[in-house]
Amino acid sequence: MSDFQSNIKGFRVAGVHAGLKKDGVLDMAFVVSDAPCSAAGVFTTNQMKAAPVLVDIEKLTASQTGYRAVVVNTRCANACTGDQGVVNAREMARYAAEKLGCDPVQVLVMSTGVIGTHLPMEKIRHGIDLGSVGLGQDWEAAARGIMTTDTRPKFASTSVALSGGTVTISGISKGAGMIAPNMATMLGVIATDAILAPEAAQSMLASAARHTFNCIVIDGDMSTNDTVLMLANGASGVSVTSPDDLAAFNAALFAVSKSLAQAIVRDGEGVTKFITLNVQGAPDDAAAHQIANAIATSPLVKTAFFGKDANWGRIVAAAGRSGVPIVADRTQLWITAGSDLWLTDDSLHLFENGMPTAYSEATASAIFAEPDVSILLDAGMGGDGKATIWTCDLSYDYVKINGDYRS
Amino acid sequence: MSDFQSNIKGFRVAGVHAGLKKDGVLDMAFVVSDAPCSAAGVFTTNQMKAAPVLVDIEKLTASQTGYRAVVVNTRCANACTGDQGVVNAREMARYAAEKLGCDPVQVLVMSTGVIGTHLPMEKIRHGIDLGSVGLGQDWEAAARGIMTTDTRPKFASTSVALSGGTVTISGISKGAGMIAPNMATMLGVIATDAILAPEAAQSMLASAARHTFNCIVIDGDMSTNDTVLMLANGASGVSVTSPDDLAAFNAALFAVSKSLAQAIVRDGEGVTKFITLNVQGAPDDAAAHQIANAIATSPLVKTAFFGKDANWGRIVAAAGRSGVPIVADRTQLWITAGSDLWLTDDSLHLFENGMPTAYSEATASAIFAEPDVSILLDAGMGGDGKATIWTCDLSYDYVKINGDYRS
Repeated sequence: MSDFQSNIKGFRVAGVHAGLKKDGVLDMAFVVSDAPCSAAGVFTTNQMKAAPVLVDIEKLTASQTGYRAVVVNTRCANACTGDQGVVNAREMARYAAEKLGCDPVQVLVMSTGVIGTHLPMEKIRHGIDLGSVGLGQDWEAAARGIMTTDTRPKFASTSVALSGGTVTISGISKGAGMIAPNMATMLGVIATDAILAPEAAQSMLASAARHTFNCIVIDGDMSTNDTVLMLANGASGVSVTSPDDLAAFNAALFAVSKSLAQAIVRDGEGVTKFITLNVQGAPDDAAAHQIANAIATSPLVKTAFFGKDANWGRIVAAAGRSGVPIVADRTQLWITAGSDLWLTDDSLHLFENGMPTAYSEATASAIFAEPDVSILLDAGMGGDGKATIWTCDLSYDYVKINGDYRS
Repeated sequence: MSDFQSNIKGFRVAGVHAGLKKDGVLDMAFVVSDAPCSAAGVFTTNQMKAAPVLVDIEKLTASQTGYRAVVVNTRCANACTGDQGVVNAREMARYAAEKLGCDPVQVLVMSTGVIGTHLPMEKIRHGIDLGSVGLGQDWEAAARGIMTTDTRPKFASTSVALSGGTVTISGISKGAGMIAPNMATMLGVIATDAILAPEAAQSMLASAARHTFNCIVIDGDMSTNDTVLMLANGASGVSVTSPDDLAAFNAALFAVSKSLAQAIVRDGEGVTKFITLNVQGAPDDAAAHQIANAIATSPLVKTAFFGKDANWGRIVAAAGRSGVPIVADRTQLWITAGSDLWLTDDSLHLFENGMPTAYSEATASAIFAEPDVSILLDAGMGGDGKATIWTCDLSYDYVKINGDYRS
């Protein structure tokens, strides 16, 4: 899914160097549809929403049809920029519409980067000039054009056979720091050539985001700018309406979203280890998610991951302070080498009856030496609630990157 | 308050090398009263409570009078140790009582260190043998005897003149990692020679802890072992009963607790900067505390402190995701060089009307270059709620210490 090839119909993309970054590095991205699209969006719940978030929410609240393009800039988040920030976000959409030959209401905008500075509008316009004439099928350039401290472009694409024919879903994302449930500094653009009703697009995107983008944790922070947008242009001529087709499309959208979300964790700032954190035995999924989030955001747990230390004590202690009344004597913990694993024959049982098992330290250390580790915690509360969070370690490099970022 | 001198009457203390740590380092501490004491305790709210926490809670629930001693060991937390852990904690108290010539119910115990290993009872008994015959006025040794990754012993003492005479309050504490509201890996023992009713002792200790020990954040984690105990032996002959005397004692207890709590932050793992984080303009104190805690536990904010970066954007973004519906356009932010400062003539106004002020970067950088910085965030919600949290930066050394701790 990540060779930057897409079979999608009726979309053209671009990544350009507008001059926001130095030395010719790509710093703006464009996803443009030939025909008007149904659009859906999920946004940060941060009270300090950035101007482009406010502008996009306003547009999508007014209408979820007729969209032609998403335009993204990096280097400046256009957040904490007051009324002028909103004026600039609107102008970014207006100028792009002018160059693309559509109406400003048909263009959505995204920004990422430093908070509290105004968009350099000359450079933004220059980037739009370049992007509007450079559209094509270079998804890698588009994926590079939205990177901030990311080290790799993030792209996923899949095609799925439905009753009326084949549709394609292709997406790009960026992340790196400030990633937490509810999509901290995380941008995603997903395009599909399926024919989707706007209501179906919104509910499927929201569901996919809830179980993928909102289940990744790098540092527990949540940004002012997080946005995932989906455009459906119908160029495949294939409608997604029957229950079977909706289920198949939903599964494909989930797969693309999961791939884009996991790529963000794997490329998190300073990340050396990819952790799949599963929780079961909670009264409901929300409680399981709360426990998983307490573990995933614990600096003590994350530094132990970095130190390749099977420090189950920190994991169960973090679960114990999650606010969910887990039962200490019935809590159990297993670890398994590899990602996206629940309980397997190779899982090592570390903790039960309120104390460690007689596990082999050598086996535990070998598992924690792997780059991918899966963890399963049973909260011992006897419920059906379960959750998965994908997270990472906390390394020297995270501190270095974030201690130096603005300067 | 920190030259390790105490005027307290009727208490003797010790710090000994039981052999839990290497090379003669002090690893157990004793606070012993000649006469029976009123006792009060506040404990971790972690569901994974360590055995000594369970044992002390059981004792204090049964009675808050008659206590003679607190015995503390380091190196082993006796947490996640099942039924055997409770047996060992009880035996630690029983053996200390035997050596001190009192009843096991008169002895409280504390443990700190690694989770999931059993107390080495031979060494514990050896330490008790040494401590019971080495009691005196060496508060520095006692303060050293409870240290884990702390680099400095923590002690505070004050005497206060009441209507019936002078009473003294002396305390020791340890912290370092895993410190968060609700007293993560944090131990404190406070002794006073005042005559205190157990109910008054409990309510004053709980109140002091709520505003001091529970207002410090190092990494947002909370341990299985956190405990603050207070013993009042009445050896001064001075009762604390009148409203004026209660208020004066309360203020003195608050001062000792604040000194011990701030010392924990200043000596936090890898700490280079001491931050006083004030929040006002929230609907109530709990909401203000919630906002302050979101800022204080944000890795992005903490790494910016380490990088000496006046990155107000991360501060307001963390406030924005706290769950309190702060008003973006009415939120304001000031920074001031120094600790425990609210708004002064030297405060620099960084943020208002949803955007940065035209502040001087040079002035902001100069303030953030100081080791002590005070921050004031007005949440713009027009309420009387306010809160103060003392916190610190997140440095390379924090990662190093916690990546290596167990191995």
